[in-house]
Amino acid sequence: MIKVAINGYGTIGKRVADAVAAQYDMKIIGVSKTRPNAEAFIAKQRGYPLYIADISKKPAFEKVGLTVAGSVEDMCNAADIIVDATPGDVGATNKPLYEKLGKKALWQGGEEHEIAGFSFNSSCNYNGAIGRQFVRVVSCNTTGLCRIIHEIDKEYGVAHVLAIMVRRGSDPGEIKKGPIDAVVLDPVTVPSHHGPDLQTVLPHISITTMAMIVPTTMMHMHAIRITTKKDVNRDRVSELIRQHPRMGLVKKSAGIKSTAELKEFAMDLGRQRADLYENCIFEDSIYANKNELCFFQAIHQEADVVVENVDAIRAMTGLCKDAATSIKMTNDALGFVPIQNNH
Amino acid sequence: MIKVAINGYGTIGKRVADAVAAQYDMKIIGVSKTRPNAEAFIAKQRGYPLYIADISKKPAFEKVGLTVAGSVEDMCNAADIIVDATPGDVGATNKPLYEKLGKKALWQGGEEHEIAGFSFNSSCNYNGAIGRQFVRVVSCNTTGLCRIIHEIDKEYGVAHVLAIMVRRGSDPGEIKKGPIDAVVLDPVTVPSHHGPDLQTVLPHISITTMAMIVPTTMMHMHAIRITTKKDVNRDRVSELIRQHPRMGLVKKSAGIKSTAELKEFAMDLGRQRADLYENCIFEDSIYANKNELCFFQAIHQEADVVVENVDAIRAMTGLCKDAATSIKMTNDALGFVPIQNNH
Amino acid sequence: MIKVAINGYGTIGKRVADAVAAQYDMKIIGVSKTRPNAEAFIAKQRGYPLYIADISKKPAFEKVGLTVAGSVEDMCNAADIIVDATPGDVGATNKPLYEKLGKKALWQGGEEHEIAGFSFNSSCNYNGAIGRQFVRVVSCNTTGLCRIIHEIDKEYGVAHVLAIMVRRGSDPGEIKKGPIDAVVLDPVTVPSHHGPDLQTVLPHISITTMAMIVPTTMMHMHAIRITTKKDVNRDRVSELIRQHPRMGLVKKSAGIKSTAELKEFAMDLGRQRADLYENCIFEDSIYANKNELCFFQAIHQEADVVVENVDAIRAMTGLCKDAATSIKMTNDALGFVPIQNNH
Amino acid sequence: MIKVAINGYGTIGKRVADAVAAQYDMKIIGVSKTRPNAEAFIAKQRGYPLYIADISKKPAFEKVGLTVAGSVEDMCNAADIIVDATPGDVGATNKPLYEKLGKKALWQGGEEHEIAGFSFNSSCNYNGAIGRQFVRVVSCNTTGLCRIIHEIDKEYGVAHVLAIMVRRGSDPGEIKKGPIDAVVLDPVTVPSHHGPDLQTVLPHISITTMAMIVPTTMMHMHAIRITTKKDVNRDRVSELIRQHPRMGLVKKSAGIKSTAELKEFAMDLGRQRADLYENCIFEDSIYANKNELCFFQAIHQEADVVVENVDAIRAMTGLCKDAATSIKMTNDALGFVPIQNNH
Repeated sequence: MIKVAINGYGTIGKRVADAVAAQYDMKIIGVSKTRPNAEAFIAKQRGYPLYIADISKKPAFEKVGLTVAGSVEDMCNAADIIVDATPGDVGATNKPLYEKLGKKALWQGGEEHEIAGFSFNSSCNYNGAIGRQFVRVVSCNTTGLCRIIHEIDKEYGVAHVLAIMVRRGSDPGEIKKGPIDAVVLDPVTVPSHHGPDLQTVLPHISITTMAMIVPTTMMHMHAIRITTKKDVNRDRVSELIRQHPRMGLVKKSAGIKSTAELKEFAMDLGRQRADLYENCIFEDSIYANKNELCFFQAIHQEADVVVENVDAIRAMTGLCKDAATSIKMTNDALGFVPIQNNH
Repeated sequence: MIKVAINGYGTIGKRVADAVAAQYDMKIIGVSKTRPNAEAFIAKQRGYPLYIADISKKPAFEKVGLTVAGSVEDMCNAADIIVDATPGDVGATNKPLYEKLGKKALWQGGEEHEIAGFSFNSSCNYNGAIGRQFVRVVSCNTTGLCRIIHEIDKEYGVAHVLAIMVRRGSDPGEIKKGPIDAVVLDPVTVPSHHGPDLQTVLPHISITTMAMIVPTTMMHMHAIRITTKKDVNRDRVSELIRQHPRMGLVKKSAGIKSTAELKEFAMDLGRQRADLYENCIFEDSIYANKNELCFFQAIHQEADVVVENVDAIRAMTGLCKDAATSIKMTNDALGFVPIQNNH
Repeated sequence: MIKVAINGYGTIGKRVADAVAAQYDMKIIGVSKTRPNAEAFIAKQRGYPLYIADISKKPAFEKVGLTVAGSVEDMCNAADIIVDATPGDVGATNKPLYEKLGKKALWQGGEEHEIAGFSFNSSCNYNGAIGRQFVRVVSCNTTGLCRIIHEIDKEYGVAHVLAIMVRRGSDPGEIKKGPIDAVVLDPVTVPSHHGPDLQTVLPHISITTMAMIVPTTMMHMHAIRITTKKDVNRDRVSELIRQHPRMGLVKKSAGIKSTAELKEFAMDLGRQRADLYENCIFEDSIYANKNELCFFQAIHQEADVVVENVDAIRAMTGLCKDAATSIKMTNDALGFVPIQNNH
Repeated sequence: MIKVAINGYGTIGKRVADAVAAQYDMKIIGVSKTRPNAEAFIAKQRGYPLYIADISKKPAFEKVGLTVAGSVEDMCNAADIIVDATPGDVGATNKPLYEKLGKKALWQGGEEHEIAGFSFNSSCNYNGAIGRQFVRVVSCNTTGLCRIIHEIDKEYGVAHVLAIMVRRGSDPGEIKKGPIDAVVLDPVTVPSHHGPDLQTVLPHISITTMAMIVPTTMMHMHAIRITTKKDVNRDRVSELIRQHPRMGLVKKSAGIKSTAELKEFAMDLGRQRADLYENCIFEDSIYANKNELCFFQAIHQEADVVVENVDAIRAMTGLCKDAATSIKMTNDALGFVPIQNNH
């Protein structure tokens, strides 16, 4: 039973905690918060021991009825592996602690590739993470790109990818970030960082990415065009997606043509937090013409990396030496059924 | 075991169906759809027999793998009581059918009071619904107003209520309705219809309401000022809310000051569809100064009437002759714990 | 002095009216409204005679102080040419009237190509419109695509275009249309209609378009990738844009990276209605690598076709036989200075 | 000719600059920026000398073609009076400079009352500002409240005011601030600071205010209920508004029922930057019942204080000793016609 600590119990951290807790071969020994807010009460409800970054704030937690188990260092000491889900750029400052304690740790995509020297996606390079001390799970957008591009590359050979990322401005529970009424180029320059980021996982792929931010909280939307080395077949692409354990097909029969309807469907299905772990590829959008393949995919920014974190833990700790087995274990423990099986 | 049919399996209907199915004394014998969309697949997942308004559309449902059990009339015939959750103004056109079949039926707040001659809120007038053939459950906004105003009235006597309703523009799963960037007076005239609508339940209350629509999907927000006959005490008001089975206190300790954070908390808690059945009153906003009481309450437009529908079924069918008992049965079967007990 | 009537004094119609009124060789003889709203008072302020579709509604206009000059047929009779700016699909129903009266007429891009048999963009096919009775000015999105693609095609030869259109959900003054919080694929299928629509103007261009709608009112944003026959040079592309009378460069020096900042800049500059007649291409986004050219352009959905309508009038009526001359006349009369000359 | 400097050429500063420049008795001798952005190019277009806070950044301005006239201290030295329109809380740090130079200065409502010891509204307390060195013009929301409450108080005597302020989340040109999809209580506590702030101008008014923020950029909306000492008459209230030089009536005839339609109307009218200097009170919302008066008013957060700044300059410098005369001068020089005169 691998002991896992979650450093940073926020949007990603709280989801990874629940996903780890659902597995048979690992358990949560603690989660950390910097201040006593709503999420701290969720940790209490779940029974996760609560550790805090600044131990001098212990009274502030106790005053509102939250028990503090110790400091972040205490937590890390008690763990076999730490999932660092602190905000972007904060994670890097935690590395010396993990090194000092000689613990394994994994970071999220908000950190640079160099922090771990290895960027992970379970469908692409699981084996490379086996036994490593440090791993970085790539961001939600890069995860979504990796899955589908790697699959198309294996089948047809990818000549070039153009990916336009229409990103959500904030998560649903955030209230400070905008924009309220604008399309923001982020960055203005082409290509965006997403292309090079994908190449930390799939170095040989030629890709150009362009990114913008729009006033929605729901999901990212990718408009993708891939030119392939062999001619592409629409039905075969659908089949590849259906067979992939982390990709889903949004079929025409559901009448879903937006991120809002997709999240509503996930919520109605009873998925925890309405999470969509899979790439949601709109079957009706798949367009194949000779060596040109286009489609839309929606990516749930809060969820798709959660299952990747679980797999990364298995690889790094040596719990499982086979990607497909780990992915199946992770999915099964979560009761995860890809979206096309529900309509 | 009372047999319940849901005519109109949409935003409200699908929630009432699940709430009914969770009870020990009633069951769902069918739900109706007009076209095969994502929600129809949810009915299938739940095992609710699917009936359709226009039986000639049966092949369209079957083509996508949805079994059709019969027509809406077939469904009504098989039921003891029908929950009409069709869109506003459509419900009225169904009344002749219910009358022809001699069935009990209840409508939602989108219909006029006159359709049933009795407007229902379980905390205010449960007994009046006992044995009735037709009942109208008032709208989400009116339900939220009824609960708190009735409670304050019992304790202090209400002299006058001013309620400003800041309403969501569309539900989270809707994509056609706006506004995108505007505050819309709806109606421009004062008072809005909400005051008179409250008086269908609480006729003696003097109330002025003003209503607007803003670009959010999350919840409605009410800013309320009540002048009372006796001087009001802030702590006692908090206590009244805590003791009420359908009201909740959002305590300062959670750091929640918006509808978005509130919905996130409900989702994290694991509530089905992140539903908030209770009025969510912000404890920190409660301001009492002599005979003046002000506060903010957030109302989840998709959820607060759901539990009222279940109670109305019990009253109308005579399953239970006591409001408090029915409310407790409904809440317990749903595992409903008011929000203040979670933080 | 060509006599111009505007049938449909709304978002586009009111702008075309002001643009026509600013020219030296044409004048507004009337505008039409279906009901007395705010825009009708603007027509009065401008001194445009007001005609109405349904003459029985005359008292409703007069009651609020609006003088009615006559029916839409009266207006058309008095005009040399009619700009039909009625809502999409309504325009088609007006064609029999224009035919009966033997009048020239031009429609907007909401109508099908077939209504006029000629789709117009002044930079691409001005000459083809000379002397025609009927012309269709293509939509704002297609206009924006035509201008830049035609220019790149002339210089480098276009091999293929991929254009992702991120469209605004509603205009700033609209309050009914959404979405509020969603990305909507419109259509889900690839390619969208924009590609074929571009080919009504530039038939030989190979193009794939994908379109979505987001919750903003400001402008459309296009992410475009063009592969060319000859290698492309970044500076030369900038130069082509600078030299074009209907394209503008958003330079890095202004620090503008969103549609909101762009509209604010147009408003600060004192442009009427903050209108941006030109394609707004972000200089910093221009990426040229061998035969690959990528860039972002923002398109003001309310404005870019306005100047095209004026040119179309000149071509159709024979006022001017040369595209460049007409474009210069139109621009000069409006005091239009492309955005790069202001920063 | 009073020499005016604008310290902080942003949303408010750029508007005050243009309003001052339009007057016959004052002129702009300089405006200040901290960095070279789009607004700096607007200053150049208008011919306002550009001063910068940190003179070491001069090369950065010159590199993009912006001439720097000197430092902020140079600018202040050359002025008779400084309008401080720097961001909230920054203004306070500038006071020592103004004191050192012995210059008159006025701040905006983002600063505390104590910075100047006198909070200004030209309709309420113009005379109190005559000859003062330091004055604070109250915020947009407080300005809107002052105008109408003072007028009702003079006519009927105000017993109590309840004002619910539904505030815009960001200005139209901002892209970082949210919320995107939430109603945010700001503050959660009741009363908000707006009540006490109003009392810096009208100390004897009893008022309770509650405030929230919603995802719109357009305008604030106030829902107001005033109880009066004498019974109130609806027509007389309309008349008071019509006669006031800084209040406007949105009449039913225009069909306007939202902030978006109101801004569109202002833009169509040709107002500079679509600015609404006046309270926009919806005539149809005025509800008078005995001593109860309710109504909605929309407040343009970027504009209503602009004209107040101009009047404050006249009062402080002694250019004009009479409020009504200054208000008329300001309005006339801007060609300002209240909205009810346009429909």
